[in-house]
Amino acid sequence: MIQIYDTTLRDGSQRTDISFSIDDKLNIARRLDDLGVAFIEGGWPGSNPKDAEFFRRAVNMEWRHAKIAAFGMTCAAEKRADEDENIRALLEAQTPYCTVVGKSSLLHVHEVIRTTPQNNLRMIEESVAYLVQHGRGVIYDAEHFFDGYKEDPDYALATLEAALRGGAETLVLCDTNGGTLPWEVGEIVRAVRTRFPEAQLGIHAHNDGECAVANSLVAVREGCVQVQGTINGYGERCGNANLCSIIPDLELKMGLKALPEGHLVKLTDLSHYVAEVANLAPDEHLPYVGRAAFAHKGGIHVAAMRRTPRSYQHIDPELVGNRSRVVVSELSGRGNLLSKAEEYGLDLDKKFDIASALKDLKSMEAQGFSFEAAEASVVMMLRRRQPDYQPPFELIDFTASVEHRQGRGMIAEATVKVRVNGEVIHTAADGNGPVNALDRALRKALRPFYPEIDHFHLKDYKVRILDGNHGTMATTRVLIDTSNGVSQWSTVGASTNIIEASWFALADSIEYGIWELSRRQQHEG
Amino acid sequence: MIQIYDTTLRDGSQRTDISFSIDDKLNIARRLDDLGVAFIEGGWPGSNPKDAEFFRRAVNMEWRHAKIAAFGMTCAAEKRADEDENIRALLEAQTPYCTVVGKSSLLHVHEVIRTTPQNNLRMIEESVAYLVQHGRGVIYDAEHFFDGYKEDPDYALATLEAALRGGAETLVLCDTNGGTLPWEVGEIVRAVRTRFPEAQLGIHAHNDGECAVANSLVAVREGCVQVQGTINGYGERCGNANLCSIIPDLELKMGLKALPEGHLVKLTDLSHYVAEVANLAPDEHLPYVGRAAFAHKGGIHVAAMRRTPRSYQHIDPELVGNRSRVVVSELSGRGNLLSKAEEYGLDLDKKFDIASALKDLKSMEAQGFSFEAAEASVVMMLRRRQPDYQPPFELIDFTASVEHRQGRGMIAEATVKVRVNGEVIHTAADGNGPVNALDRALRKALRPFYPEIDHFHLKDYKVRILDGNHGTMATTRVLIDTSNGVSQWSTVGASTNIIEASWFALADSIEYGIWELSRRQQHEG
Repeated sequence: MIQIYDTTLRDGSQRTDISFSIDDKLNIARRLDDLGVAFIEGGWPGSNPKDAEFFRRAVNMEWRHAKIAAFGMTCAAEKRADEDENIRALLEAQTPYCTVVGKSSLLHVHEVIRTTPQNNLRMIEESVAYLVQHGRGVIYDAEHFFDGYKEDPDYALATLEAALRGGAETLVLCDTNGGTLPWEVGEIVRAVRTRFPEAQLGIHAHNDGECAVANSLVAVREGCVQVQGTINGYGERCGNANLCSIIPDLELKMGLKALPEGHLVKLTDLSHYVAEVANLAPDEHLPYVGRAAFAHKGGIHVAAMRRTPRSYQHIDPELVGNRSRVVVSELSGRGNLLSKAEEYGLDLDKKFDIASALKDLKSMEAQGFSFEAAEASVVMMLRRRQPDYQPPFELIDFTASVEHRQGRGMIAEATVKVRVNGEVIHTAADGNGPVNALDRALRKALRPFYPEIDHFHLKDYKVRILDGNHGTMATTRVLIDTSNGVSQWSTVGASTNIIEASWFALADSIEYGIWELSRRQQHEG
Repeated sequence: MIQIYDTTLRDGSQRTDISFSIDDKLNIARRLDDLGVAFIEGGWPGSNPKDAEFFRRAVNMEWRHAKIAAFGMTCAAEKRADEDENIRALLEAQTPYCTVVGKSSLLHVHEVIRTTPQNNLRMIEESVAYLVQHGRGVIYDAEHFFDGYKEDPDYALATLEAALRGGAETLVLCDTNGGTLPWEVGEIVRAVRTRFPEAQLGIHAHNDGECAVANSLVAVREGCVQVQGTINGYGERCGNANLCSIIPDLELKMGLKALPEGHLVKLTDLSHYVAEVANLAPDEHLPYVGRAAFAHKGGIHVAAMRRTPRSYQHIDPELVGNRSRVVVSELSGRGNLLSKAEEYGLDLDKKFDIASALKDLKSMEAQGFSFEAAEASVVMMLRRRQPDYQPPFELIDFTASVEHRQGRGMIAEATVKVRVNGEVIHTAADGNGPVNALDRALRKALRPFYPEIDHFHLKDYKVRILDGNHGTMATTRVLIDTSNGVSQWSTVGASTNIIEASWFALADSIEYGIWELSRRQQHEG
């Protein structure tokens, strides 16, 4: 069993655009425990009060699979371990494990912490020993180990020996600057194994040479039993080693166990969850867990996939909780549209002109719509071309306005005039922005006819400027995700006017929701 | 010298959200030639008329470093090479090189193209030979080579032999499904070298196991002299091998030449250029070329970097045309802010309260502002706290409205009331969206006082929804890049109201531009 050591909450949060609240961290930790990682590094209690508070709350919670670890440096050059605040903060975190980082590189000893090689060895041994004496399991992170080894192998090995003398349970070899190549990792791990055949080794890689995953796998092949990394590879600069790739590579390709039996299928959901909490758009192209990881666009690939799924997929996507997708786009053929209609239970009329629908779809894509992530808009587009189509409402007019008046702050207001079952409804609402006001006015107009729309919740609202180099004249694409508590759907709108783009996506979203519900009731009725 | 074979324009454009026009392709090809890659694969002339047109134009242009290659499949199972339309389209492309892809895997021979192993060998040999007879250099792409080799090494090797008999110049081993691990690549390339010691070999890797870069490097180490990949790793599913990482890994870490002398510094600009043309936000965390690749956020790293830059950087960023960045963010200290003021030539007053400025900055970040990419807004924030600060204009009121009236289409209009030098200007403008109308009204009001603003062009306008799960009530962050033809600056605004957020960024942008110009004139005067 390979130990997966997650440091999303500590090293991952060093990424320039990530800032987790304490609740965010606790929520992510719970999900990591549920996935079944061996260790969760929660933060650096000596560096900020937020992390200290995290540990106060975390240590009183129940953890099914993971052990919680607190991170900190060795004691300062001029202090004993028992008088160092950073070491004290580690103890106060009350975690079963502490991870202590120390210097392996003479460059850093001389130029960064400015002490003697001998004193650095003392700092390592004493810091580890002090925490072990207080009952903690200690993981020793050998910072810049590979660079240090290349400078001076004897000294780098001596720092590991100091950590072992202190009682460290695991020695983790860190490629802190992320520039080491896979065969260098292989050779150096082998040398460490030869020197310390009994020691338990780990690997901590960064992605600055774009080899973090390969470096981690090579290290495991050479005998490391712990892999440190982060969900989605989040981390400073170019990121940490991506556990969402490493875990399936280990389990599906190398035949090793890294998670409890049956837990690998949780990986895709977890990846998206962490992206959401980090407030980052999930990277669609991430291996294994990305939305596009098993997406097929070209007609030839799609045809081959129908013959045999193995032909253009390296694994079955369901093993990691993902799925294959056939993308509807300007490269699509009639088959893609027909299979989308089937998927959504839309019985197309015999005379349905699929070629003309495809032509319209492509011309809308040329205007800035994108249907790849907005299948409900594709379904509405097909639905509107059916001979029995009756729109649930028709737009006559809308307005949206924003006013900033000195001393009176901002006001956003919208009006909507729609026709429902022959009746004209004209109403208005305000909101905390023009799109919110429009959303509220439309719902107000439709509610008497379709009370179910009160259960439609906008889950996500995304705006993308398509040709940003046209400045404020650029085309705007709006994507809206809506849920009714049972199912979720996505719609799209595009225009140079962001209000109009939002209107298209909103109107599609509400119309789809009304249609989907009526269809479901018919089936059940 | 390693041959860099770029397939951004063909395999790269298979990415779900990329669609290049012919001009886009020609522009990118020119930049790739300027970088100095050995081959540019322009497209698949047999698959669509757009690619055929690309070659008609490309073959008449002058290329300094690169050879242009057209891509296509071997002839169909039931055809001779000389009667196959796809092969004919390759000839008609008139390129000096043709790249022919054929099947290496028995699974594909039996289940996808549904022919006999023997006929597949005929298709390969005949297709290559026919193009060679017509004076083309032929590169043979052995599709699914690694998977095919694992199924049946003898057959996979026999397909390479067929291509060699046909006269192929280079045999490229493709990991089409992207799931092969580095040591497997190493072993299989070694086996091919042993079998064909005289043949020139290449590698074409995909990133489905997140090992594409490592796989390419390992293949080079085992003797491949051609590396196929794409700029920024764009490509279907999880992408192709990323040339922006492979090239510097080869040159800076493995001591090999991949580009003409002195051209490596062009890499970062090229990466951003291709992202812009592809209409994708550049990935800030890309190794070597990402904006955050050498960004330092934590105080301890920043302090160590001041002592010795090597301490937390694996290479000197200037070697690839990138630079180090100290990030101003909620983790910043006073030092970060002071060095930013210096960088922008702002002489802070002796009594300047840096602690209070830092506090304001952090509280604005908590509201959704982000100053990491908007340094002009940081400078304006500091500037406004200087005792000699005189605002060039003061906002009194603004309004923006959008109307959609049946039969009359969309109207967007804005009004602005500002005070300049004691005078109140109240004016209005329309636009193709509310923000564009506001931009135009503000410029109209200020133009009589600051005619230089006519030279301020909005280069980019980006919108990000911060807490999308609040639906249309979410906080919106707007980033604006402005240029006056000499310098470029970026500003930020945030609000739940997108119009207000845009206003903040616009007003900062114009105020910064006016201030920067007057400061430059003072220095020159």
